[in-house]
Amino acid sequence: MAARRQPDPNWEQSVRQSFARQGFMGLIGAQIEGLAPGHCILALPARPDLGQQRGFLHGGVTAALADTAGGYAAYSLMPAGSSPLTVEFKINLLAPALGERFVASAKVVRAGRTLTIVEADVTAETGGVSTPIARMLATLICLENTPDQPEQAAGRAV
Amino acid sequence: MAARRQPDPNWEQSVRQSFARQGFMGLIGAQIEGLAPGHCILALPARPDLGQQRGFLHGGVTAALADTAGGYAAYSLMPAGSSPLTVEFKINLLAPALGERFVASAKVVRAGRTLTIVEADVTAETGGVSTPIARMLATLICLENTPDQPEQAAGRAV
Amino acid sequence: MAARRQPDPNWEQSVRQSFARQGFMGLIGAQIEGLAPGHCILALPARPDLGQQRGFLHGGVTAALADTAGGYAAYSLMPAGSSPLTVEFKINLLAPALGERFVASAKVVRAGRTLTIVEADVTAETGGVSTPIARMLATLICLENTPDQPEQAAGRAV
Amino acid sequence: MAARRQPDPNWEQSVRQSFARQGFMGLIGAQIEGLAPGHCILALPARPDLGQQRGFLHGGVTAALADTAGGYAAYSLMPAGSSPLTVEFKINLLAPALGERFVASAKVVRAGRTLTIVEADVTAETGGVSTPIARMLATLICLENTPDQPEQAAGRAV
Repeated sequence: MAARRQPDPNWEQSVRQSFARQGFMGLIGAQIEGLAPGHCILALPARPDLGQQRGFLHGGVTAALADTAGGYAAYSLMPAGSSPLTVEFKINLLAPALGERFVASAKVVRAGRTLTIVEADVTAETGGVSTPIARMLATLICLENTPDQPEQAAGRAV
Repeated sequence: MAARRQPDPNWEQSVRQSFARQGFMGLIGAQIEGLAPGHCILALPARPDLGQQRGFLHGGVTAALADTAGGYAAYSLMPAGSSPLTVEFKINLLAPALGERFVASAKVVRAGRTLTIVEADVTAETGGVSTPIARMLATLICLENTPDQPEQAAGRAV
Repeated sequence: MAARRQPDPNWEQSVRQSFARQGFMGLIGAQIEGLAPGHCILALPARPDLGQQRGFLHGGVTAALADTAGGYAAYSLMPAGSSPLTVEFKINLLAPALGERFVASAKVVRAGRTLTIVEADVTAETGGVSTPIARMLATLICLENTPDQPEQAAGRAV
Repeated sequence: MAARRQPDPNWEQSVRQSFARQGFMGLIGAQIEGLAPGHCILALPARPDLGQQRGFLHGGVTAALADTAGGYAAYSLMPAGSSPLTVEFKINLLAPALGERFVASAKVVRAGRTLTIVEADVTAETGGVSTPIARMLATLICLENTPDQPEQAAGRAV
């Protein structure tokens, strides 16, 4: 286990610019609510077109919010010029997701040179009451010398 | 382990109607491409607003597609009048998700009375070439005597 | 989601008797170090025959310790006459497992009528210093009206 | 994603010697039953001291067998002079584990330069009948330039 490299001194700007490039976070209306080294909180207002067949928040949206919060918690500790990539995540959906808005709060469990382990809790908020709806445990890889931006090659974008 | 109950004889209609009620599947443009007892295939054309910061399909969208395919593979074997709920899933993202469209193919590994285990593979297709991008292993619970529809109570919908 | 039933008032005795019946916990030398409702701590002294090929504690032993601690954390909140069964678990191995002894500390994240979600942390201790080596997130099912003991039928035991 | 390196030409000998060094596999009595590039099958005869409180094979033993089979499936494709380490695994226990012996069959899903994804199925055999009892999905890391042997430093072994 080699020593970790120095985190990007401009980590907060890097995280915010990367988040702003995420087309999907824009589509669902998620926003950054809190950032600190090794931590990231995202918030998502409820909308009918984010639901599954019974009107609960779709489990895939819950997972996307948790995965993204986890990704930026990890990225905040990575060196400049690198890019985070989710290797895998596991999420337990604890209760039906009903609420006015949803909040994913992620933190780094272990930051290694190559791999970072993160966890995230997702809650549903209604009238000021917060209910846990999901817990995630994930692994990310730090791609060194890989700018966290789209490649120029035409046709490679989604 | 009690014996499983008889699957809904109108399972295909139930699956298609349930899928049509999923606001989020409509938002991202996913469609049912194949159905058989214990199997479900979903397809999703690529769009810029489904991407993450580098232009790959967002891992949360990949997960949503796999989770939904798995849910309907499970639901196809459940008794009439019941509803499926994802308990948890684990997904490995095998390669950067770039392509013209994405296909999630799910099948039931074990269908018990209460719990169903499913797996799904997700591929990216470009110019007729298909590349594996994710594998998921998930657990669903069958809620008996629970219509797979939104409850009437005002304010409970997302 | 139906209401949970009353936990076994003799939960501590039930947990200790169940643990004592676990042949495998005896084989590896694990012991209960702490118990409280919804919590269980197990300890395991290091031994060469618990190692993998490089002399670290075998990941399967780490997982067995975490899974068992999680199982008894869950069982402590279940009604009398029921039995816990692990549905699935996911474990991240955070660091090579080297130490004089290993401690798994588990707690219940959510206790439902049918399913219980638990998490566990495993640490390695050397000279009074404790290092995190694993984190687990698991799902258990409560089998009601199922005594937590071997069935009498000959030939069914392992 | 850099290109993978050439697998160890003596992979089979490397796998068998590594397995033979695993104290824990010796303790439980597991043996290699089949090997091929990217594949590994392990077998484990049932014994009372491998059980949990109800006499089923302990879930941790099931996991250890699956994890080890997965590890050697991955190791068979790694370059000479490297060592495999499990990053994480997720296992679904599909049915109570009762039988005369247990067999874990693992294969590589994706072999990258740094990370390898494997899956494993575990079955219980009784009187020639085989029943699925578990499915695992795991991530391993290839530690390059790391001999797959105990380090010499005193006190570092388990």
